[in-house]
This record gives sequence, C-alpha cells and structure tokens, in this order.
Amino acid sequence: MESDIIEKRVKKLQALLREKDIDCLIVTSVPNVTYLTGFSGDDSWAVVLKNAIYLVTDSRYTEQSQKQCRYCKIIERKKSLSLAFLSLLTKHKTVKTVSLESSTSVLIWKALRKDTKLKITAVDGLVESCRDIKDAMEISATRKAITVAKNALAKALKQVKPGITEAQLAAIIDYEIHCCASPNSFDTIVAFGGNASCPHHQPTNRTLKNNDTILIDFGAKVQGYCSDLTRCYAIGKTSKLYQKAYEVCCYAQRQAIKAVKAGEKIVDVDKVAREIIAQADLPVYGHGTGHGTGLEIHEKPSVSPLNKGILKAGQIITIEPAVYIPGQLGIRIEDDVLVTETGCEVLSKSCPHGPCLG
Amino acid sequence: MESDIIEKRVKKLQALLREKDIDCLIVTSVPNVTYLTGFSGDDSWAVVLKNAIYLVTDSRYTEQSQKQCRYCKIIERKKSLSLAFLSLLTKHKTVKTVSLESSTSVLIWKALRKDTKLKITAVDGLVESCRDIKDAMEISATRKAITVAKNALAKALKQVKPGITEAQLAAIIDYEIHCCASPNSFDTIVAFGGNASCPHHQPTNRTLKNNDTILIDFGAKVQGYCSDLTRCYAIGKTSKLYQKAYEVCCYAQRQAIKAVKAGEKIVDVDKVAREIIAQADLPVYGHGTGHGTGLEIHEKPSVSPLNKGILKAGQIITIEPAVYIPGQLGIRIEDDVLVTETGCEVLSKSCPHGPCLG
Repeated sequence: MESDIIEKRVKKLQALLREKDIDCLIVTSVPNVTYLTGFSGDDSWAVVLKNAIYLVTDSRYTEQSQKQCRYCKIIERKKSLSLAFLSLLTKHKTVKTVSLESSTSVLIWKALRKDTKLKITAVDGLVESCRDIKDAMEISATRKAITVAKNALAKALKQVKPGITEAQLAAIIDYEIHCCASPNSFDTIVAFGGNASCPHHQPTNRTLKNNDTILIDFGAKVQGYCSDLTRCYAIGKTSKLYQKAYEVCCYAQRQAIKAVKAGEKIVDVDKVAREIIAQADLPVYGHGTGHGTGLEIHEKPSVSPLNKGILKAGQIITIEPAVYIPGQLGIRIEDDVLVTETGCEVLSKSCPHGPCLG
Repeated sequence: MESDIIEKRVKKLQALLREKDIDCLIVTSVPNVTYLTGFSGDDSWAVVLKNAIYLVTDSRYTEQSQKQCRYCKIIERKKSLSLAFLSLLTKHKTVKTVSLESSTSVLIWKALRKDTKLKITAVDGLVESCRDIKDAMEISATRKAITVAKNALAKALKQVKPGITEAQLAAIIDYEIHCCASPNSFDTIVAFGGNASCPHHQPTNRTLKNNDTILIDFGAKVQGYCSDLTRCYAIGKTSKLYQKAYEVCCYAQRQAIKAVKAGEKIVDVDKVAREIIAQADLPVYGHGTGHGTGLEIHEKPSVSPLNKGILKAGQIITIEPAVYIPGQLGIRIEDDVLVTETGCEVLSKSCPHGPCLG
C-alpha cells in the first residue's frame, strides 16, 4: 500500500486520539489493522501512538509485512501480543492513557490489564469512523471488485441449464472470480426455487428444473475491498406470484436508490423500500435494506430502521430489499451504491438484471 | 443434526457448569454455538441453563434454525441479543450466576452487564474443552472433508503445466471442492517457486515455469468440519537445495507422526520435527508443528513448543513441519492425524505426496 494513503489515514486517527486524550490505541480488529498499516494478514496488532504507528506481528508474516507496510514500524514478537506490547511501552515512557478497541475479546483485555498493570479503557468505533468515508483508493478497489464479480457472473450464466446443481453454479462463479486472483467476499449463495427464501442459504446438490428460479448472492475482493451483488433469474415460465414479487422488489430497490443522497436520514431510505413491498401486500423482509461494504462485507452504516444516522458522501452501501415466502420463493436485488452530495452512483449498474434467462 | 448427538454434547457441558457452579452460560462464539445446537448461521447465541438450551437468533435464520436445531428451544429476537437474553432471564428466576465466554467482545460484555445489572463473569475454554475430543460424527465428517479435498487436488494436478498461474490452479481446486457443495476450510494457498516462503501467501498471476516448484495448502468443509492439507511438487528439474529440504521435511513429518500417541507430551512431538530440520542445517520454521482441526481450521491443541499439555485419544491434529528460505523456496508437508490410544491414524494418508509431477 502507498505510504501517503496510509499516512493520511493514520494522521486522521491520531487527530481523533488527541481529541479524546488517548496517548495510545491498541488496534486488534483485523480489517482495522489492514486499514492503518496495509498489512493483509491476521494475528497482529497495530499500536497507534501520538507520532508513530507499529505493527506487532510474528515470524510467519515477516516477509509479507515488510513488503506491505512501508509507513509503520514492524515488531516481530516472540511471545504473546500482550507481552510484546508491554515491551514496546517501556520505550515510550510518556504514554499515560492506553485504550483498546472494544471489539477485542474479554480474554485479551484482561491479559493486557494484568500484564501492563495499566487501567486500559475500551473504546468503540474509532477506526471504523475513519473507514466510514472511503478514499479514492478504496472506491477504485471496490469498482474493480464489482467488475471481477460482474464478469464472473456473465460467464457463469452462459452455463446455466436445467440439470445444473446449486453447488456447480456457485463453483463456476467462484472459479471465474479466483482466476482473477480475487478471493470471495463471502461464501457464494446460489439458491434455486423455494431454497431462496432462506437469506443465507448454502448451495446444495438440488438441480435446476424447467420453469425454475435462481437467486445468486456473491462478491469478489480486490486489494481487500468487497463487492456484494444479488441477482435473480427465471428459467422458462414463472408463477404470477414470482413475477409480481420480482417486479415489486425491483421497483422498491430503484426507489430506495433514488432516495440515497448525502444528508438523508438512513431510516427514510430504508422505509422507502419497505413500504413499497408492504403496500403490494407482500411480506416485508426481516433484515436491513442494506449495509456498508469495504474491507469487510458488512460495515457501517447499517441501512436499517434502527439506524438514526444520516448518509454521508463517500460511503459505499448496498441497497437490497427482498421478498421471502418460506418454501415458495425468495427474491433479493442488490447493488453497490456510492453516496454523493447530489445523490448517488450505482457502482454495479452495468451488471444486468433478470428475471428471464430464456 | 441428530438430537442424540447434540444432547450428549449439551449434557457434557452442563455437567461442567455444575462443577463450576455456573447456572447459566452465554455462548457467543460461532463454532461453539454450532457445536451445541447444530445451527450453522452466525449472529446468534446459545444460552445453556442447568436443564435447557436456547438458541437466540433473528428472522433471517427462522427457517434454517427450525430445520437444523431439534434439541434446543429457538428464540427469535426483535431487539439486541443482550436484551433478548434479559427477557429470557425473567423466565428463569432461579438463575443466580451467569457466565459469558471470554472470547466475547468487551463491548458485548459491557452491554450485558448494563442491561442485566448482573455481575457476569468471563470464563475461558469451557465449550472448547468439550470440542477437543471428537465424537464419531465429527471424525466421520473430517474423513469426508479430506476425501473432498484429496479428490479436488487429484483433478487439479492433471491440469498443471507451465503457463498456468497460481490463481488459476487455486481456482480449479476450489471449483472441484465447491462442486461437491463443500466450502473451503480457508482461502486456498497456491505458491510457485520463491513465493512459497511466505506461509500465508495469496495466489497471484505468477505463472508456472519449467523447472519450477509448487506449494498447495488447502482444505474443504463437510458438515462444518475442516480438512487441511499441504503438498509440494516439482516440475522438471529442481535444485539440490530444494531436493534436500524436501526430503528432510518429509522425514521430519514422518518422524513427528510416529511420535503422536495419547499421553505423549505435545512439546515432544513438536520437538521431533524441529530437531530433524535443525540437524540438517536448514532454517527451523517459526510456526507450530501443527494444530487441532474441527469446526474451525485452527483449534486446540496447538502443537507448539509453548503447549505444556499432553495428547488425548480422539483429538484431530495436523502435522506440518516446513522449511522456508525467503525468496528462494518454501516447503511444507501437512497431514491430518487422529490421535489414538496406541498411536495415531493418518486420516489423509491416501493423498499422494510430491515432489515430482514430471
């Protein structure tokens, strides 16, 4: 990762730490460590001081961290992370107040308090608040991740025909994604017919029939950044109920996307999609209308009825209303959207929608 | 999951809780929840009382939890997990002592203490201590996961030839695994030549040359259980250093496997492999010689110089010594081994070893 990008991120966080009178923040969350250092491994901490940042890692990651992390100092620990931190602290006598990310386990928190004999406070969401607004590198990586996913889907759809299993179709999508040296954003969901009413269905050996339906929810990662798309298709004839639900879901999604703009209340965007589905006498989905994406597949902001926040320019969110009728059908349409001052850009707009595959 | 298997696991845990005078344990770790309920989703807790077990989940998982969890009672929460727990507690007035898994985040711990006004203690490794010894279902699932991985590798190796990229070879392995409706145990590692000296290398567009080497570290999941295999191969001629390192590494692995037996000290098994590599004047790997596998790819016991425990019959561990020379070569040979009273069974023994692919 380029040092100037990392430097900007670290300085933004350091300004926040000064505001909150924190001399030292221990960052344990894997994506937060990646964001602040460029390091893509795990089992490592970032330690952020007023004028420095350290990556505490181990010998498995020596080569990798040297390649990936130009801005931070690298410490190769021999013992536990907690003891390596203690040893680092002895070199920084002016540190008085130490905070730890509250996503850290109680076990580590207790070990740190015991080892350092410091009263370490737990703080919530500091690095996440920096990650909320994406920089140019992050937007560009997300665009690439969408392109990889979109191209994989296009190739896979050519191989769809009655007889293929959910697992085989998922395998083809994954093959195309992995050939681009991209990992999945998450395990690909392919659900035929009534299986699609489980939002988190895992692909099975169920075969595609004539006059059947398909739901595909998938994504790729590029430079660590996730794409997340859902498309639904019909093979042959579909029921009137499916057609109605598909059209209502698409309309709900389009209208929710139209409501996306910096400054808008998140609950209002969520409500647009939910009300259209309710007004059509269809069951309203239990999950949020969307979520942020980035280094993680689910990031802030959650686009849900419980989120009292407003949208900000530079956020990347999914918009994914759905209709589920248990055992009968499941439809979800999901795009990745960049919030702007004047509205939004649908980053995944060139990925074609269903429903008819012929 | 069959109710009788789950019942046995829950009763074993409940006996442990009685010993420790814990009336109620909140289980938040995803694999621990799976182990105790059969539920394969996330964002859900198991609440274990003296005579009952609950799964607290949400509407996304209604259908799935009803199918998967026959033994426990299912609660579909509308608000936070913490508040759903509070509401459950009002129905169990006799509960005096509540414990929480110490792998839970500080954030959740604090929310629970605030919401319930109870002094909730953090406890470490209770469910993990039950998971340590695998039952017949778990061993059988691991065998299947190894078979899926082994067959995928065999098919992929037929397509290896100069010009193929690391990413393409990984994609073929993943395709074959996913066609069996199995997810990966972890992101497949394929590393050519010097790239293999990074233990956690991510596949790139680097192409295979004539007289090149390959390291493949991968696994499949069946019924939630992971396999984990590493194989190394040479294409054409290899250097004398590679040949020596390969032979020493294989020998170290065979000897370490011979040392595996219930009752043996874990450090002694670790030492066998490490000393053979040191005595051959090759650099000794920085990671452990192995680790437990199961619902997670890395479970207890860690086969490392720091583990003071002994091996127990029914544990499934990897044995994976390695030789890394940065930028030059990386060799790791990894098999999955079931510890028995009289020694061990190499579950992955039928997966052929390298080095020469021709």
